[in-house]
Amino acid sequence: MTQLATPSRDDAAIRGLILARSRALGAKDAAAVADCGTSDAVCYSLAPPLVDTGGVKGLEGWFATWEGPLGYELRDVSVVAGADVAFVHGLAHLTGRKVEGVVVDLWFRLTLGLKRTAAGWKIVHEHESVPFYMDGSFRAAVDLTP
Amino acid sequence: MTQLATPSRDDAAIRGLILARSRALGAKDAAAVADCGTSDAVCYSLAPPLVDTGGVKGLEGWFATWEGPLGYELRDVSVVAGADVAFVHGLAHLTGRKVEGVVVDLWFRLTLGLKRTAAGWKIVHEHESVPFYMDGSFRAAVDLTP
Repeated sequence: MTQLATPSRDDAAIRGLILARSRALGAKDAAAVADCGTSDAVCYSLAPPLVDTGGVKGLEGWFATWEGPLGYELRDVSVVAGADVAFVHGLAHLTGRKVEGVVVDLWFRLTLGLKRTAAGWKIVHEHESVPFYMDGSFRAAVDLTP
Repeated sequence: MTQLATPSRDDAAIRGLILARSRALGAKDAAAVADCGTSDAVCYSLAPPLVDTGGVKGLEGWFATWEGPLGYELRDVSVVAGADVAFVHGLAHLTGRKVEGVVVDLWFRLTLGLKRTAAGWKIVHEHESVPFYMDGSFRAAVDLTP
């Protein structure tokens, strides 16, 4: 666990990328979010389908369902970085108001897979989710807090 | 993308580990599943809480809710392996019968984070999920297929 005990330059670069992505999400800047990843990133998103193929257009459409800026903060972030491959996991807190007036205050799990490219570290895989209640209701557990 | 275009020895070792894990899950062998990962693995599971701290005991408890063996197969598996860090993502198909009689046929998304250890590649992070319908019902999307 050397790279965890002694944060490397890569660890710092990846945390910088994750922070830039969080700020871009909060500012609803789809192009800046996209710039954190590759165009062929495989995304498992909060909403269907199983594999998200919406890309920037999908993100812009999703941003349009929110009134004003979003709150988007991460905690318990762990970065595991090798020379050319890394992954990150943590908990995300999404807050805001949908255009139809619903107030959202949601905690979810986030995992990112990254590769070092000629343009620096880039996200090539995203996995965002909440668990679900296995009590027969199959309700998404949108009411959990860390 | 060299390591994707030319499958490495690491790629093969990791695919072997993933296959061993799938077989152990199908056979409801909690010790064998646990042997694929580290004891401090951070798991984001299908069921609450946000972060699963159940370990082997939790897995044994979950296995006990199923009648007979489980069906557990992966598809669209992608392995991104560096020298010491790797991640894997793909779609999992879980089938079986719960002890109370409910038949389960569920597709979900799986992401694994791995590190090379003295004992070979081990899973240090798991993220399993289905998306949920953002139509106000907040139903888990347990009815999706790839």
